[in-house]
Amino acid sequence: MTGAKALLEALREQGVELCFANPGTTELDLVRALEEVPGMRCVIGLQENVCTGAADGYGRLAGKPAATLLHLGPGFANGIANLHNARRARTPIVNVIGDHASWHLDCDAPLTSDIESLARPVSGWVRRIASAQDAARDAGEAVAASLARGGQGATLIFPADFQAENLDGQAAPAPAAAVADRADDDFDAAAVWRRLSAARRPLFLLGGGGPDSGLGRRAQIAAARLCAALGGSAYAETFPARSERGRGLPDFDRLPYFPEPARAALDAADLVVLAGALPPVTYFGYPGHPSRLVPAERLLTLAAPGGDAASRLEALAELAGAPAFEPADALLPQPAAGALTPQSIAAVVARALPEQAIVSVEGGTCGYPLYAASAGAAPHTVLTNTGGAIGQGLPVAMGAAIACPDRRVVALLSDGSTQYTIQALWSLARENLPVTVLIAANHQYAILRNELRRGGAALGERAAAMTALDAPRIDWVGLAASYGVPASRAATSEALAEQLEQALRRPGPALIEMAL
Amino acid sequence: MTGAKALLEALREQGVELCFANPGTTELDLVRALEEVPGMRCVIGLQENVCTGAADGYGRLAGKPAATLLHLGPGFANGIANLHNARRARTPIVNVIGDHASWHLDCDAPLTSDIESLARPVSGWVRRIASAQDAARDAGEAVAASLARGGQGATLIFPADFQAENLDGQAAPAPAAAVADRADDDFDAAAVWRRLSAARRPLFLLGGGGPDSGLGRRAQIAAARLCAALGGSAYAETFPARSERGRGLPDFDRLPYFPEPARAALDAADLVVLAGALPPVTYFGYPGHPSRLVPAERLLTLAAPGGDAASRLEALAELAGAPAFEPADALLPQPAAGALTPQSIAAVVARALPEQAIVSVEGGTCGYPLYAASAGAAPHTVLTNTGGAIGQGLPVAMGAAIACPDRRVVALLSDGSTQYTIQALWSLARENLPVTVLIAANHQYAILRNELRRGGAALGERAAAMTALDAPRIDWVGLAASYGVPASRAATSEALAEQLEQALRRPGPALIEMAL
Repeated sequence: MTGAKALLEALREQGVELCFANPGTTELDLVRALEEVPGMRCVIGLQENVCTGAADGYGRLAGKPAATLLHLGPGFANGIANLHNARRARTPIVNVIGDHASWHLDCDAPLTSDIESLARPVSGWVRRIASAQDAARDAGEAVAASLARGGQGATLIFPADFQAENLDGQAAPAPAAAVADRADDDFDAAAVWRRLSAARRPLFLLGGGGPDSGLGRRAQIAAARLCAALGGSAYAETFPARSERGRGLPDFDRLPYFPEPARAALDAADLVVLAGALPPVTYFGYPGHPSRLVPAERLLTLAAPGGDAASRLEALAELAGAPAFEPADALLPQPAAGALTPQSIAAVVARALPEQAIVSVEGGTCGYPLYAASAGAAPHTVLTNTGGAIGQGLPVAMGAAIACPDRRVVALLSDGSTQYTIQALWSLARENLPVTVLIAANHQYAILRNELRRGGAALGERAAAMTALDAPRIDWVGLAASYGVPASRAATSEALAEQLEQALRRPGPALIEMAL
Repeated sequence: MTGAKALLEALREQGVELCFANPGTTELDLVRALEEVPGMRCVIGLQENVCTGAADGYGRLAGKPAATLLHLGPGFANGIANLHNARRARTPIVNVIGDHASWHLDCDAPLTSDIESLARPVSGWVRRIASAQDAARDAGEAVAASLARGGQGATLIFPADFQAENLDGQAAPAPAAAVADRADDDFDAAAVWRRLSAARRPLFLLGGGGPDSGLGRRAQIAAARLCAALGGSAYAETFPARSERGRGLPDFDRLPYFPEPARAALDAADLVVLAGALPPVTYFGYPGHPSRLVPAERLLTLAAPGGDAASRLEALAELAGAPAFEPADALLPQPAAGALTPQSIAAVVARALPEQAIVSVEGGTCGYPLYAASAGAAPHTVLTNTGGAIGQGLPVAMGAAIACPDRRVVALLSDGSTQYTIQALWSLARENLPVTVLIAANHQYAILRNELRRGGAALGERAAAMTALDAPRIDWVGLAASYGVPASRAATSEALAEQLEQALRRPGPALIEMAL
């Protein structure tokens, strides 16, 4: 057995079944070893940020890591942006980076670089495998590390000579099977209850994640009961990794993105209870606004991100003697007829979502409008861009579709951000994934124009040119077709509704360019 | 004047005229300041690796830095791969990264990351601007740093608050105008000549770069004279940043990529003279082959990369009493009729190249065949992938076209690598650049299959699947058209010759998919 096969088998034994791969010459012994490790499915991305974003989407839904297989420092670097998002989503991922043979490193060949320096900013754990004998043990520890602290990136650097080396049974033992670490601190229900019950206007800030997170079904329902009992309010964090939404759940608003409305919401509360959310901060630094939106004395941490917010909220609801949750009547807005607007798009999509759909949302144009329209939609799971590195929405949708083969995935995306990882379309076609891609094509970086215009400023001529994507306009229908994804264009809400219905009936992917 | 304007004006004063930009919210004061700094041309890329690769191509031709404008750590990370290549090419580049306001950093907002850790592996110089008053001085020092050590990346991290701050004339003074640093050590012509003249079979290894490099016209001619006088041989380094080629120049071979033929070439020499090239090493570590292909005692460094190899070779040629250079008859191979092969593509391209064309070559399929066919072509300049991070060829072509608006650019690329930065097509269309893109579409990662088959090994089933790009086949003609680049497909050498002639007459870009 080679070191490469030992590593792959150890990953399999620890439950890793998926590898999003873009290998090169220094990973070829891992590619060779895959012939003998059939339980490891490999999905190819044409660019590494597709692979890492897909691993993020997979991990958010599967609750366990996928592996990525990346080529030295430059290949890893191409995937850093989506690993940054995954870090903010606390997604478990095991990155395997092939490196030069250990004896070749010091001659500084063209592809040599400081991989560790590149890896650390997006990895909670980095290890360079020091011998073929260590490969299985290190792989096991990487899986365990990826599940620690509520989920994080674990990066293994695997020199090519140790991949190729024949072990002859001398391997270091693999560790015991890894289990997810809740990242929870202690919980003194009575003490929390004393503080909560003394608040006049408590606000629950619900953080996203797995089923036990603040934005799973259980936590949302418990928060609604607490609000009813205590006269408080609840908000979803602005960009949750994963959240449940739709009929049968309370309709909490999302904490606004810009500081003025966010402060208006938070300042109304005398206690902000963090249920799986971090203390709220402004997205960027805005002069005249504090970065930390709530002073420490008004914050109460009920559960850390990655912790069991659901059980704690339920325990508090019991202490409060809160009534059972009664879902309100589901409201589904009617799309305005004719030319598309973000609001009519949101209404069409909310009406069309199948039960248990997964919705990957990226971009400012339709993200909040869909949130506002989807309380009455069929129950669905929402994935958002957690770290602000754009180019996440399409790969995350791809990974989610692989994690949940019996669920439909809808990717509601902006045109500017989707370009960053456009090559993901090819992987959708190759794997025939049931992902329906909706592109809000306004042919501009609208979010930047919104920021430039803040405070009533006029948009300068060059600033307008630098935020325009309309010369030439990208032909999204032709682009998708060139990657093997059937596509159409809709300019009205009627056309969108019809095309979306058709696309959702297809077994594989489809793309709709929504002309705005 | 704001800190942002002070920085841009200082860059302009130091000769920086081009900015390849992909800005976000933390760069908006720089975008605003551009309204008042008209001498700074901004070119937008839809993904940052397009921007950094274009800055590489620009710097290789212009001999001075372009700036890049990138968005925090994740935006910078997207551009690292081509900065890695630029580092190997010794290209001067000034990266400007907007960061959060200085007072916002410690709240760890979503886009916060360790930018310095990401920047150092691809930057010879990194500085975080500490106040608005320092912006002009730091910009000047960044330009100087980019020109030091033969050319390198210089990275400035510019917090958003210092960009916005009004200076009111309190700025630190900008440094004197930067000048390129030759990176040359001392040269004792007599001592070098003693050692060279004692060699029986000297070999000159010529390194690429600017006009004075080992692969400029002067150095190649001097090397040919020395070979004639001394009975030696000369090779171009395998992947030069920039080299001159074609009629009127000697036809030196390129040092082979794989270790067996490279060793055969180098082992025949009793002295290897490095004229602007690094000591040759194998590209990867190959068992049974040394990493360093020439022992130190057989190496003689005439000029370091970035140094003045031309003058030193000319001095030696005089000491040798070498005869004048007589160019051999220009040979231009005839393309075989019918279905395209790498050889017939190379012959068609070599015949069609206009005088003073710039050729950006990436990918194993046609790279060496063109080299072998182009000694008799019209004089042209070749740019290759210096660092092995694929996705360089198209952005480098884009940057070269901007640096040299009166020259035609031909990008001869492989399909696998071109996908990495496919978004560059849009920038070619937007800027209407005279770049003719030739895609060798074999729908596979052929280089990996060649490596997998080394030593006669069979290609495993999964290895074949993981190196296949044919399900679905990318429609390159449709893809280019969707980005606004006119395109056609050629399956025979006759069709390619006709389409290439037409494409080279167009004022703007065109793409030809070459079916293999």
